[in-house]
Amino acid sequence: MSTFNQPSVSSFQPSIRTLMGPGPSDVHPRILSALARPTIGHLDPEFVAMMDDVKVLLQYAMQTNNQLTIPVSAPGSAGMECCFVNLVEAGDKVIVCQNGVFGGRMKENVERLGATAIMVQDDWGKAVDVAKVEQALNDNPDAKIVAFVHAETSTGASSDAKAICELAHKHDCLTIVDAVTSLGGSELRVDDWGIDAIYSGSQKCLSCVPGISPVSFSEKAVETVKNRKTPVQSWFLDLNLVMGYWGGNAKRAYHHTAPVNALYALHESLVMLANEGLENSWARHKHNHMALRAGLEAMGLSFVVDEADRLPQLNSVTIPEGVADEAAVRSRLLNEYNLEIGAGLGALAGKVWRIGLMGHSSRAENILLCLAALESVLSDMGAKINTGVALAAAQKALNK
Amino acid sequence: MSTFNQPSVSSFQPSIRTLMGPGPSDVHPRILSALARPTIGHLDPEFVAMMDDVKVLLQYAMQTNNQLTIPVSAPGSAGMECCFVNLVEAGDKVIVCQNGVFGGRMKENVERLGATAIMVQDDWGKAVDVAKVEQALNDNPDAKIVAFVHAETSTGASSDAKAICELAHKHDCLTIVDAVTSLGGSELRVDDWGIDAIYSGSQKCLSCVPGISPVSFSEKAVETVKNRKTPVQSWFLDLNLVMGYWGGNAKRAYHHTAPVNALYALHESLVMLANEGLENSWARHKHNHMALRAGLEAMGLSFVVDEADRLPQLNSVTIPEGVADEAAVRSRLLNEYNLEIGAGLGALAGKVWRIGLMGHSSRAENILLCLAALESVLSDMGAKINTGVALAAAQKALNK
Repeated sequence: MSTFNQPSVSSFQPSIRTLMGPGPSDVHPRILSALARPTIGHLDPEFVAMMDDVKVLLQYAMQTNNQLTIPVSAPGSAGMECCFVNLVEAGDKVIVCQNGVFGGRMKENVERLGATAIMVQDDWGKAVDVAKVEQALNDNPDAKIVAFVHAETSTGASSDAKAICELAHKHDCLTIVDAVTSLGGSELRVDDWGIDAIYSGSQKCLSCVPGISPVSFSEKAVETVKNRKTPVQSWFLDLNLVMGYWGGNAKRAYHHTAPVNALYALHESLVMLANEGLENSWARHKHNHMALRAGLEAMGLSFVVDEADRLPQLNSVTIPEGVADEAAVRSRLLNEYNLEIGAGLGALAGKVWRIGLMGHSSRAENILLCLAALESVLSDMGAKINTGVALAAAQKALNK
Repeated sequence: MSTFNQPSVSSFQPSIRTLMGPGPSDVHPRILSALARPTIGHLDPEFVAMMDDVKVLLQYAMQTNNQLTIPVSAPGSAGMECCFVNLVEAGDKVIVCQNGVFGGRMKENVERLGATAIMVQDDWGKAVDVAKVEQALNDNPDAKIVAFVHAETSTGASSDAKAICELAHKHDCLTIVDAVTSLGGSELRVDDWGIDAIYSGSQKCLSCVPGISPVSFSEKAVETVKNRKTPVQSWFLDLNLVMGYWGGNAKRAYHHTAPVNALYALHESLVMLANEGLENSWARHKHNHMALRAGLEAMGLSFVVDEADRLPQLNSVTIPEGVADEAAVRSRLLNEYNLEIGAGLGALAGKVWRIGLMGHSSRAENILLCLAALESVLSDMGAKINTGVALAAAQKALNK
């Protein structure tokens, strides 16, 4: 019989970071406290009542009356997969808009389902070009779905979800929308915009811990799932089964064991959002973006995304001249100031930094810390930036 | 524009329960405290170092040197799907042993992959019959995989994993093993028994919060995944991608955002298991089972599973005569004593209760509470049981 030594590992004590990357964002102590409340059973009547509250709170956050508005028990990429695996069948044609990393992931999802992805390509950092979507719809009258990213986490670009959904519906297509980074941070109206299937993440502008993906499906989308010709590829993500646990007023049927404590945390984050008011949260994200932007621009940094399409919660800036090793800058920020900012991803790796102002991270003190630390490290490392002006510029914008 | 009212929902404050169902089990305060530590980034060097510790701790808990020993970022049913979706391709033949709910879920997984499930059926509450597995292997020389449940959570029956794996290997088959309820609670030796792919859950004998599924894959299984003819159906669960984040010493590639805080909790639960010692934990589960059993049998209740195949951590007992409404008994236990025990599932629904003694729930005080509360409620509701003898019987067994 093999023998295995008992590993000698101590409890893990993380450093206290300020999280200004592309997510996870800073988690409010109220949410961490909710997370640690005593675990109860996933079929406990108290828990089931809490699940109903989560649905109502999510409907508000997403601005929808969709009955099927629930958190998937896994990260955002499983939320994405939940949308595709339920709505797409082998042989279907799906128009996929790509202007960053996550459009590419959508393509992967479509192709693994045996369906065809018609790609609408735009440059990284640009919004999805609505005219190109129209062209693709005209060229592919048999397309069933249009899928696009509302808020590209890899670039910080926002696309016109309302216009794309209108076009899609005009061509009898359903829409699948990635709102991982927009939910709670910038305007998002599922019903008014006609979004049929949407997924998001817990760890961005909701400032909850990572690991949960809120989704919502319109009645038309639910009908499509119910009338599939073939079974859903995934048992775990099959909404026909998940609805038995989360849906309606009937007796809850066990499907899988819900991540009880993570849902306590999501509940708390949604209560906090409701208390603040959704539009107030959007306005706060915008206001704080203006202050960070004023500081970064005063320092001489430039934004990747045009102002009109820029997400206030995710600021991609070009790495300034004179920085030989961008990873060293991020390491110094982390090691010397416990400050995390994000690297570039995919085509933008090594070229940009992504500075998040999401949820609880979107605060005046974070903006000042980020500008001060960045200025200090960058000037020490010989970057060509303006010094001594960023903080005043940010403060002025904060006072507006 | 539609208007949605701000929901008026307060923070959720769960009751303090004693969890003696089929999971989640009681979560130790040390683990809840670890869960609530401040969130850091999923690519933070501190977090990456913690991930390495989790792998080492899981290898110990599973008694394996498998390099690919990691937690899937989702519940046990996603862990199951991770095993099947990576190892099975359309057209494959998989021998699936069913002696409860979870063998049936394996069948669902196989069929959704376009593969064929050859079912080996045993009665619910019985162990998998090794002779029937041998017969199925003889009848199906083209079978590629044998899948079975080591510890059936729906019945409390344990099967002879070692014997089944030996047989499977003799016929050149890989093995997929459900160890959701056995890991940490009863003997489990991945390497010595020759298990090729195994999945478990965080919320059973590890006493961690629900939502994470530890898995492990042998070298042969990893080779099979790497040499697939077709892409893995699921992007989220594709181990070829997941290995880039979790595997080896190379630079970690972003795949999905890990559930950071849930992994803090898993880490802590595994540290506690290592400190106790795996074999001590198995012995504790056995010892406490003997005490609960002595009490239940003194009361006149009988076990569903034969003694030889009985899991100490999950005690299925037949509902005694005179109980008209078994759900009312469970409700009273919950409402009057904050005690959760489990209902029967599938074919055993309404016929049995499942009393868990898993992880932190496997304690003398829980046994006494359970016996006392059960005796009190059952006698009040007119069940035919012996009263006044259970506690002494349990105490005697505890003192052994």
